[in-house]
Parts: sequence; C-alpha cells; structure tokens
Amino acid sequence: MPKPLIALDWGTTRARAFLISETGEVLERRIADRGIQSVPAGGYPEAFAELAGDFRETAPDAAIVLAGMVGSRNGWIEARYVACPASPAEIAAAAIQVALDAGTTATILPGLSCDDGAFDVMRGEETLIVGLGLSDGIACLPGTHSKWAEIKGGRITRFASFMTGEIYGLLRNDSILARLAEAPSDADTADGAARGRLAAGRPGGLLNTAFAARTEVLAGRMAGGAVGPYLSALLVGQEIAGAEALFGKGQTIHLVADGALAESYGAGLQARGHAIQLVTPEAAFVAGVRRLAADLPA
Amino acid sequence: MPKPLIALDWGTTRARAFLISETGEVLERRIADRGIQSVPAGGYPEAFAELAGDFRETAPDAAIVLAGMVGSRNGWIEARYVACPASPAEIAAAAIQVALDAGTTATILPGLSCDDGAFDVMRGEETLIVGLGLSDGIACLPGTHSKWAEIKGGRITRFASFMTGEIYGLLRNDSILARLAEAPSDADTADGAARGRLAAGRPGGLLNTAFAARTEVLAGRMAGGAVGPYLSALLVGQEIAGAEALFGKGQTIHLVADGALAESYGAGLQARGHAIQLVTPEAAFVAGVRRLAADLPA
Repeated sequence: MPKPLIALDWGTTRARAFLISETGEVLERRIADRGIQSVPAGGYPEAFAELAGDFRETAPDAAIVLAGMVGSRNGWIEARYVACPASPAEIAAAAIQVALDAGTTATILPGLSCDDGAFDVMRGEETLIVGLGLSDGIACLPGTHSKWAEIKGGRITRFASFMTGEIYGLLRNDSILARLAEAPSDADTADGAARGRLAAGRPGGLLNTAFAARTEVLAGRMAGGAVGPYLSALLVGQEIAGAEALFGKGQTIHLVADGALAESYGAGLQARGHAIQLVTPEAAFVAGVRRLAADLPA
Repeated sequence: MPKPLIALDWGTTRARAFLISETGEVLERRIADRGIQSVPAGGYPEAFAELAGDFRETAPDAAIVLAGMVGSRNGWIEARYVACPASPAEIAAAAIQVALDAGTTATILPGLSCDDGAFDVMRGEETLIVGLGLSDGIACLPGTHSKWAEIKGGRITRFASFMTGEIYGLLRNDSILARLAEAPSDADTADGAARGRLAAGRPGGLLNTAFAARTEVLAGRMAGGAVGPYLSALLVGQEIAGAEALFGKGQTIHLVADGALAESYGAGLQARGHAIQLVTPEAAFVAGVRRLAADLPA
C-alpha cells in the first residue's frame, strides 16, 4: 500500500530532501548545506524540520526515510553496516526507527560493508545502487570517494571505494602542480582530457604520470589551463583501470552521475571501451528509497 | 691534474656545500636552508660566500662547481637541459661559467631532459647518477619527486620522476586520512609497512588502496599509528611497480638514499625481489661532481 514518501539523502556536508508521491513523482526537492557536520548532538529533529517540515505539512501521512551519514556514529543514531552480499530486503531489515516528534517516527537506513580482501564501507550509495533495479551488473558512483559495486542475483555482492575526487583536489589545488594550473579554455579542457586519458594507460602509473603535468607545461608543450583537465582525466582513467581489475570488463557500466562528472566519467569509460547506462543520482535515489521503503518491516 | 674542489648541490630549499681534496676526501661539509628560493636576484655571489667563503680561504686554488636548481630559470643563470642519452662528457660540455668575483669563475652544471613518451627533467640528480660510475644499471633516487634512471654504455639513457614524497605528504597531512593518523609506535610502523607493501600489490590501484587506511582504522582492524607507515609503504610499492613497468626487472637497483628513505625503499625493493646496492647521496654527489669536474672543457 504505497504512501507518499519524504526521503532525505543526508550526507556529511549536504542534505537532499525529496517529497515523493505514491506513484514515484518528485513533488518537491531541496538541497541544503545542512550535512551532519553542521548538526549539533540532539539537533536532528530541528534540522529535519528545517529541511522538510513543509513537506510534512503538504503530506501529513507520508513515511519518512533517511539515508546516508545521518545513520553513522557521528549522525542522528548509528545504524549498523549490513555485510555484503546484501539484498534490498536485507538492507531494509536493518533500518532503525527514531522518534521525530509526538507520535511520528522516521526510519534511518543502514550502510553496507564489504570485506573483499580490504574492508570497505558505504552509507547512502547503497540506496542509489538499489535504485538501479539491477539483477546483475556493475555500478559506478563518481565523487570525492567514488564507489564501484557489483550486483549479482539482485544482491550487492561487493564494492570498492576510490579517493579520486579528493586526490584530484589535493593535486590540483595543493601540490606543486597547482602553481602551473590556470583556468582552462575550452581548447585546454579538450587537450588536457585527451592527454590525461592517454597518460592513464602509461606504464609508470599515477605517481609518474601526475608529475608529467608539470614537465609538459614547463617544456611549453601543454598549456597551464590543461593541467586540471589532464589530472581529472588521468585520475578517472586510473580509477576505471583499478575497477576493471577488481570487477572485470565487458559488462555495461551503470554510471550514476550528472553534470561534469557524467561527462568526465562517460568519456573515460568510453575511451576504455565500456558500454554505459547513465542514471542521474536523483533518479537512482528516488527509485532506491522507494524500493527500500516498500521492503521495510511493517 | 686534480685540484681541490668546492662543490655545491644547490637545490630549491637547501644547499649542501663540500670542500673535497684532490684525492676525493670530504674535508668540510655544510648543509644550510639557503636554497635558491631564499636567494634574491643578483644575490648569488653573496649567498655563495655565506655557504662556502671559508672553504675558499682554506683552498684558494680550488675549482668551484655548482649543481642543481641553481642552474634553473629561477636560479643564478639558466644552464640548458642536456637531452638523454647523455654521457658524463656530454653533461660537462654543457656546463656554463659565472663570475664569482674579480678573476674567479664558478661552473654551473646543466640538467638533463628525457623525452620517452612523456617529457621529464632533472637538475642535480644527474650528478649523483654519474657518481654511481655505472656502465649499465638502474638507479633509484627517492625523494619528494623521486627519480629512476637507466644507464647503458656509460650514458644516462632515460629517466622518470615519481611524485611519491609529495603525495605521501598530501595524503598523510591534508586528506581525510590525516584525521585518523597518529604518531606510530614501533609496532604500528612494522604493521603499517607490512600492510602497505601488501596493498601495493592489490588490483584496485593507489586510489582504492589509499582509502583502505581509513576503513581499516574505522573498523578497528588497524591502529591510527599505522596510517602513516601504511601510506608510505603503499606509495613506495606503487613507485617501484611503476618503475619496473618502465625499466624492467632483474637488474640490481642502485639505491641512492640514507636514513628513513634508505630503510623504506630498501624494504620495498626487497619485498619485490630486487637486489640492491645502497649508496649515500653524499658519496654519489662527491663522486659525480669530481667526475664531471674532470670532464669539464679546459
């Protein structure tokens, strides 16, 4: 018996709140810099009211489901990590309830853990992956700490994190390469990205090919504006190569991204011969949270 | 006809000055934070006098030879890069003279460039590599921007840089991993290094295995003190793997290092099955600058 849904993807720095109709239509959406790092202990009911109080007025009978770092040790309450492999029903079964105000509860979804040689965890991304609705496949969720996941028989079997976005920021803004980097023209963006994709395939690896941004500019062979696009394409290429080594090649990659990340990962995946299915983070989250809400214990 | 030698390895942040006897004995040495970034335009004769004026009083007839970034565009005067492959005589032939004071000149050694797919340059390391006295071999010079070089038939044939030391600093001190890192105990150092060497061989690559430092600590499976040693061993392992891909395996590695770098690179090279010949940077520099001084045009 579907009900309207108030769903939040509540991360460390940002919160995304959605009011979703019974049929899955997004009636309202809000993005705010109100991540858990800005919420004091005990301040979650109030922060929730700021973010989605008006959604509750519009849809007083809506179920409330919260995903992401809000369920971490530093969030509202700690919801345990469900160990992979995990089905949507197994994820939903580990959700926990919190009291919002008199008579109303909200459901906090758990994260996932994976112990595939190295231990790894995610919070929030599992909801987007569930939203892909895959029986079998590979998902790529780019970001500060990108996630790749394998789905088999409708369960998330394993996943891996990559520090791609964070290391890009460090190299672009805080390393010796930053001194040479300039705002890119369109031509710089195209040239840097083409060079970076090529460099990702070189045998010396990331530590060697990142440095080439410096020497190529000093030699007058690359524009300063190409440094950022070069590093971005190089790191994306290295991430994809690492993910291929972990998850294999040949399957369609379900890329959960929009904007600049959709472009750079799309180009990087195509350059390495992958077929891509692109899904926006919003579409994946909405589908995933509806699926998990439907699987919640009554 | 050997003469005493006043030789400086004059880099960006530091200068190392040596008074070397006719027979190659180091009579005096000085290390000072008087790199070229601290020397104003036109201030080099004065900075040289600070660093080695007393060496000149001791040995008035000594030849004066300067290596490193002092010969760069931002140094005393720009000495061009000699393209690889380059012999000691070819390097010496590109040295240039500067006037120190009335009637005295100093010789500034050139750097090396290599265009082996990606363009790369070095200044100062070429002198240490020459100092190894190799006909054929592989040299590894660890540092902020490590250099590996191949020597064939007595010439430096090609080389490559790796941003290992700099990326270690960024990850250890400025990334999300820094929040979890603590000062290591001896046990942490051993444990972190062993884990890092293992992780360097994992298929996911650096972007994936660096992140594991976080998840392993959060899961209570690794101490915060092991984060730094883990990252160090991981990055050294990645550098060595990249250098193997570029220069091959099976030859003795001439490792130019002392202190902590000699230990971490020694352990990393041994873990990957390399035979090692260890040489201190001072011994390599002194031998190299003597060889290049002997080859200078009369």
